[in-house]
Amino acid sequence: MAGPCAVENEQQLMEAARIVRKSGAHILRGGAFKPRTSPFSFQGMEKAGLELLARAKEQVGLAVVTEVVDPHDVSLVSKYADILQVGARNMQNFALLTKVGKSKRPVVLKRGFSCTVTEWLAAADYLLAEGNSRVILCERGIRTFEDSVRFSLDICSIPVIKKSSHLPVIVDPSHAAGHYSLVPAIAKAAIAAGADGLLIEVHPNPKEALVDGLQSLTPSDFARLMRELKSVAGSVGRSL
Amino acid sequence: MAGPCAVENEQQLMEAARIVRKSGAHILRGGAFKPRTSPFSFQGMEKAGLELLARAKEQVGLAVVTEVVDPHDVSLVSKYADILQVGARNMQNFALLTKVGKSKRPVVLKRGFSCTVTEWLAAADYLLAEGNSRVILCERGIRTFEDSVRFSLDICSIPVIKKSSHLPVIVDPSHAAGHYSLVPAIAKAAIAAGADGLLIEVHPNPKEALVDGLQSLTPSDFARLMRELKSVAGSVGRSL
Amino acid sequence: MAGPCAVENEQQLMEAARIVRKSGAHILRGGAFKPRTSPFSFQGMEKAGLELLARAKEQVGLAVVTEVVDPHDVSLVSKYADILQVGARNMQNFALLTKVGKSKRPVVLKRGFSCTVTEWLAAADYLLAEGNSRVILCERGIRTFEDSVRFSLDICSIPVIKKSSHLPVIVDPSHAAGHYSLVPAIAKAAIAAGADGLLIEVHPNPKEALVDGLQSLTPSDFARLMRELKSVAGSVGRSL
Amino acid sequence: MAGPCAVENEQQLMEAARIVRKSGAHILRGGAFKPRTSPFSFQGMEKAGLELLARAKEQVGLAVVTEVVDPHDVSLVSKYADILQVGARNMQNFALLTKVGKSKRPVVLKRGFSCTVTEWLAAADYLLAEGNSRVILCERGIRTFEDSVRFSLDICSIPVIKKSSHLPVIVDPSHAAGHYSLVPAIAKAAIAAGADGLLIEVHPNPKEALVDGLQSLTPSDFARLMRELKSVAGSVGRSL
Repeated sequence: MAGPCAVENEQQLMEAARIVRKSGAHILRGGAFKPRTSPFSFQGMEKAGLELLARAKEQVGLAVVTEVVDPHDVSLVSKYADILQVGARNMQNFALLTKVGKSKRPVVLKRGFSCTVTEWLAAADYLLAEGNSRVILCERGIRTFEDSVRFSLDICSIPVIKKSSHLPVIVDPSHAAGHYSLVPAIAKAAIAAGADGLLIEVHPNPKEALVDGLQSLTPSDFARLMRELKSVAGSVGRSL
Repeated sequence: MAGPCAVENEQQLMEAARIVRKSGAHILRGGAFKPRTSPFSFQGMEKAGLELLARAKEQVGLAVVTEVVDPHDVSLVSKYADILQVGARNMQNFALLTKVGKSKRPVVLKRGFSCTVTEWLAAADYLLAEGNSRVILCERGIRTFEDSVRFSLDICSIPVIKKSSHLPVIVDPSHAAGHYSLVPAIAKAAIAAGADGLLIEVHPNPKEALVDGLQSLTPSDFARLMRELKSVAGSVGRSL
Repeated sequence: MAGPCAVENEQQLMEAARIVRKSGAHILRGGAFKPRTSPFSFQGMEKAGLELLARAKEQVGLAVVTEVVDPHDVSLVSKYADILQVGARNMQNFALLTKVGKSKRPVVLKRGFSCTVTEWLAAADYLLAEGNSRVILCERGIRTFEDSVRFSLDICSIPVIKKSSHLPVIVDPSHAAGHYSLVPAIAKAAIAAGADGLLIEVHPNPKEALVDGLQSLTPSDFARLMRELKSVAGSVGRSL
Repeated sequence: MAGPCAVENEQQLMEAARIVRKSGAHILRGGAFKPRTSPFSFQGMEKAGLELLARAKEQVGLAVVTEVVDPHDVSLVSKYADILQVGARNMQNFALLTKVGKSKRPVVLKRGFSCTVTEWLAAADYLLAEGNSRVILCERGIRTFEDSVRFSLDICSIPVIKKSSHLPVIVDPSHAAGHYSLVPAIAKAAIAAGADGLLIEVHPNPKEALVDGLQSLTPSDFARLMRELKSVAGSVGRSL
């Protein structure tokens, strides 16, 4: 899964979709509703963003994953997206989880940045208990004292989950690292540790990104990383 | 502010309300909607709990504070409660904050257990930006490596907020401590550090509480603590 | 206990000692050996600093506490100091603890900034097991994700220790806060929570301090704080 | 580098050395001086342990790495060991670092479990400033709130160090995981992320280990892991 942090406009999204497809990824990510720390930051294109995602899906032929932040938007977002995403800040938003659990769409459940693996699996239980069994866990880093990265990716959570749950687990190296130069090493580590997939930020022109440009890969860096990942996946008996 | 973690039944709530009032506290707390880590735990009495709170308010003459967890329940909860509470797990639930911001009710905004003071003030901005200026910040402990308590109360956050914000800040010693025997020391420390109030869990019979019994004070411990707090408040030029 | 972070020269130390005494504190602190994160920072006056401390002790009539960092300096430092200090970075330096345990001098054992209360008490066991029973625990803040202070003072550790150990516990608000403006609130909270003493940085002229000037109180701020602390101590049945 | 946590007796060490060699590792680890949280735990065989290491080195033909904990043991340990190790709890023991820096032996400098990468590199400066340029950094996990592992391995530290330092960095997956079943996934992740080596605990019979048996690999698990690591190393253009 790859794509820009936020849907910004038609041109940006279509270009991103083509890059993602060309490099061999299968699913396009892009945020239409953006939960932001401050109310004065860009909050996403909302419904117009969903429509652009649907258009990209049709034209480029990729499945689409996007975040839902309000329980009462679940049915709206489900119309446009193949996979729903519950963000880290909403991992314990139980009203939202309950609604998403009823939706029957596959869900990417991001780990809350200060939640234990046990709490994460309990949050997944909110989805499973409503009958939604297609839950994909996504490790995206935890908050620690270390200040050279945005979040410390908890690589150990991958084997811990593999021991105690049948759910697939993917890794978002971009939000953990906070800087594009660290993304390839973390992505390769995740695959070597047994992750079932990756969620990577790619932007046609990271310098002009409205959100999280510093952690987005350029198209050429992304293409190179996809080649390297194929090699690492092969070394642990997996394929991309 | 004091009262039981969850509204359980009429008798429990009325007794708790009388204890709270008798000891000189001004506001009754009690949860009708309970956000729980697991979907298999008691989730609160919901609307019936709100009605009991309203009855306690009338009969005992205390203002009432209770938590709202779903953006679409804000107007319902506002009918019954004098003060809304946004819980720690919802501090960055921006859909909820926006709705609560529009409600004009006073709000207790609990600190997310892994959010910085800066992020907490940014969450308060979501309320202020919608025109709700009656925001009360509530420190309730942060998640650290220390395992002798549930959360480490961040006592430094009180003077940090006093330096950078005009908003009042109160402290919840019960959720931080996780054990009733630690509550008095933390409550006194909070007042000495300059907190503008406290939110304490009291239960007529903690051993039979459905939620968080171990951290609830008994009526007699609460009465003694209130007397001690008056003395500490006086020593720093404040009164209860 | 109060005084400058580091002994810098005779004039600075004598002035500091007079300020400390005049405000009613009983013990002078001052570092002769300074463990610093970088080898390129000022490392302390070493033996010459110890001699100045001994002179200040004689002339002003205060007991003296100072840090020891190398196991083979324990007997040297014991000649000059009434109380030895083991710093936070050395809390699990077991070679040092064993030597200090044999010395029979009272010891201030600072909490490692990422050690649990259980590990702290186990470190005290290294002193007790060698026959040194005069151990004073000193809480000085733990490392967390919060970035508005240098360390998050763990106020809960005070009642936790009071429940499980007979050892006295004091608090160093200066190293936790990292900024002088936060020191008074934290110091008052510590006393209200049941701390048996405080270790506060005071400097005749904080702006010119070689180490940690930003967290040192001026003489007049220190004198005011001592008056306020008397009032808080009285409110919880203690005296300074 | 691989071997048992502690040297226990001649038979255990010789068996471990043969296992390590047979699987293709180059350096034997084994602790003679063991820094333990409690004074009542096994503290290592001390000098007798060093002699056994020297014998294993001769008989099996592996280089030997072992920890030094007291500045005044540096010359003693240097007589027996090819590589000195400074443990996590001593990363900021500046008296020890200064002595080890003067010794000119290669040094494995383990990361303090609550030290930032910046502080770690500053600790390495203590070694470099004394003229010892053969410093090997060793990531071994940091302390966080996550409780399913002993320490959270900070996989991001590897690319962060590769960007800012020329020093080699190796990874100790055993102390981070705390459980043998998690070691292989973490070891493979470390190599994929760019680590220059690994330090793995192997014991001829983990169930009877005096220290850290639960995190030690059996001989057959270690042999399998070494084969898998060769494959992962090859996929990122490295060899073991």
